[in-house]
Amino acid sequence: MGKRNFSKRVSYRTSDAMSKFVLAQDPETISFAGGLPDNNLFPVEELKHAYEEVLRTEGNLAFQYTSTCGDIKLRELVGKNLFKRWNKTIPADNIVLTEGSQQALDLLGKLFLDDGDIALIEEPGYLGTIQAWSMYSDNLIGIPQDEYGIDTDYLEEKLKELKDLIKVLYVVPDFSNPAGTCLEIKRRLKLVELSEKYNFYIVEDLAYSLLSYDHETYPPLVTLSDSNKIITIGSFSKILSPGLRTGFIIAPKDITQIIVRLKEGTDLCSGTLNQKLIYHFYKLGYLEKHVEKLRVAYRTKRDSLKKALDEKFKDIAKWNFPQGGFFFFLVFPEWVDAYKLAETALEQKTSFVPGEEFFVSKRGKNTARISFSQVSPEKMAEGIKRLHIAWELYKEKEEVFL
Amino acid sequence: MGKRNFSKRVSYRTSDAMSKFVLAQDPETISFAGGLPDNNLFPVEELKHAYEEVLRTEGNLAFQYTSTCGDIKLRELVGKNLFKRWNKTIPADNIVLTEGSQQALDLLGKLFLDDGDIALIEEPGYLGTIQAWSMYSDNLIGIPQDEYGIDTDYLEEKLKELKDLIKVLYVVPDFSNPAGTCLEIKRRLKLVELSEKYNFYIVEDLAYSLLSYDHETYPPLVTLSDSNKIITIGSFSKILSPGLRTGFIIAPKDITQIIVRLKEGTDLCSGTLNQKLIYHFYKLGYLEKHVEKLRVAYRTKRDSLKKALDEKFKDIAKWNFPQGGFFFFLVFPEWVDAYKLAETALEQKTSFVPGEEFFVSKRGKNTARISFSQVSPEKMAEGIKRLHIAWELYKEKEEVFL
Repeated sequence: MGKRNFSKRVSYRTSDAMSKFVLAQDPETISFAGGLPDNNLFPVEELKHAYEEVLRTEGNLAFQYTSTCGDIKLRELVGKNLFKRWNKTIPADNIVLTEGSQQALDLLGKLFLDDGDIALIEEPGYLGTIQAWSMYSDNLIGIPQDEYGIDTDYLEEKLKELKDLIKVLYVVPDFSNPAGTCLEIKRRLKLVELSEKYNFYIVEDLAYSLLSYDHETYPPLVTLSDSNKIITIGSFSKILSPGLRTGFIIAPKDITQIIVRLKEGTDLCSGTLNQKLIYHFYKLGYLEKHVEKLRVAYRTKRDSLKKALDEKFKDIAKWNFPQGGFFFFLVFPEWVDAYKLAETALEQKTSFVPGEEFFVSKRGKNTARISFSQVSPEKMAEGIKRLHIAWELYKEKEEVFL
Repeated sequence: MGKRNFSKRVSYRTSDAMSKFVLAQDPETISFAGGLPDNNLFPVEELKHAYEEVLRTEGNLAFQYTSTCGDIKLRELVGKNLFKRWNKTIPADNIVLTEGSQQALDLLGKLFLDDGDIALIEEPGYLGTIQAWSMYSDNLIGIPQDEYGIDTDYLEEKLKELKDLIKVLYVVPDFSNPAGTCLEIKRRLKLVELSEKYNFYIVEDLAYSLLSYDHETYPPLVTLSDSNKIITIGSFSKILSPGLRTGFIIAPKDITQIIVRLKEGTDLCSGTLNQKLIYHFYKLGYLEKHVEKLRVAYRTKRDSLKKALDEKFKDIAKWNFPQGGFFFFLVFPEWVDAYKLAETALEQKTSFVPGEEFFVSKRGKNTARISFSQVSPEKMAEGIKRLHIAWELYKEKEEVFL
């Protein structure tokens, strides 16, 4: 017969690394693998109160469909508060609530990409973006980043070379996943300038922006320009709860209108109760206090991890010092295969994600993402000690071949 | 420049009919337009109790990510109970929980369709399927249905003609949307036989199957055969709450594994709290009792609507008598343009959806979907009276041209 049963996208690149190192673990493992927030930090009591408020004020409607663009009250609150620090208000019409930021990425892939279209992704870059967009085009290109974020000079060369073929670029300007970098202000301005000049859209993802530990972040791109080429996405997953699956897209109104139509075909609407819960939690003033609490808790974790890494890995690998977010990104000597190291680490009951996962180009074999979000400060040293044992074992085995 | 900013799918067919007739209404309107469940029938007290159970037994984990395939306890419960009446159990590995059945449809479009691939949809058929699948291919073909469901003779002719080009067929075997039909048992068996012979997948959607008012439904396709060509989808939207956005896909394990990978790129996972709420509601025994209550309430609505239609429209249109679900499907004389009638009806403060929306072929201009789910039995006669006034006005205007 020769008929292909499934779509082409089903045969696209896939890797077992995430499921192998993030999911399949025994309880004894100290995990630096997942990018999940700490279970113990969810504000359960305040959410309980918010739930009572939902039932008291909204009654049965909390269980009905909501509009495809999302709860109007929550959109208004996000629009009013999110960029207050930069004196910018976003009208509710320019906001669509999504099923976490992952659905925002899926909808943007749907919006922009036909098969073969080019999308650019900072490299190393967020795996969820690579996964979402490769469903729509197999033509993703990585643009390297250094310690100051995406390399805008390299980008400009690529733009000159590929010109009109590029439709969209993805960056995480603050505390990026996995690199932990912040995009410097000069480059932010340059990005906006390039997107106008070369006519492509920028998707900036603010997933970690509120989780800053040392100083406030630089302004998001959307506050730096009135360009209609900037799309901003964000999420309540890291600052409140990923289980409530609520993210958002901020875009010019003609774009949000198209996105709403795409979302209608995708899931009709996101969860009503979830959106109303978050609205009341936010409105009751719990969110700001909670973010403050998270900053303190995650800063402590970060500092413990830094100390442990300094002690054990100083002469073995290089890394950034992240000033927010969840991740250290380790660069080992070129001969290292971090996937094999991760396998050895798993045997020693600790885990991390091999950095190669975050490279569209499949470079980065010698890199590793080490997440501190789920490990208690007390266990940090023990986890890194185990990783160091794994390193010694791995090195011994490899050195036979070197 | 000439570059297309957005993907081709953005320019696909679109209609204002749903938003015009379903959403934009003043509170005085008696609406037969939406397929939404009745606000007043949500079991808020029992859900409150279920929420307490979630917090008591699952604690903080209710707010963390859940697995991409969905809460294991809920999948096990669905697998154990859904087809109990037909002595069939589905292993949890064959079930993926989704963001309502709309996401099930989106994921199946992603799974099967490259641009140009053929998908068959019963006609008239569910608009959500047309919307979801047309994002992946513009080659959807309608297969007519009559009062016994999809016409399997017509289908067989199409299959002989198009052979290998057809990848998937969509049907709602019980109380279909919008036609209200049930697929007779002989045709169910024939469908399974054809899918094996011509090597295409069947997606059967059980959205309304539990809402039967006169007798139990015939067995779902998946209980009639061990064929690996049958995919079953369903949802808690109509039997519990659409705001909790929980549906499911039942498929052979090699397919659920692919779907999980596609879902990972789409939204990582669905709402944790929502799934746990439904699990506890179900486990506490509330679901069965609630469905019984819904059957009584919607049966009363259906009977009131039938009475009102019999009185006012007997000589004007023909319709089915639905034995479950939410919909009467009216067929007017051929000269009628139901879109224009719907506009006139809106002026008379009542509404319905023009049937043309549900035809891939854009036939069905003279048809109308009348939903009784949201109208109280007391208001049914008044609504149909208004519709009759609209009819008289419309006819008068049109007869000038006839």
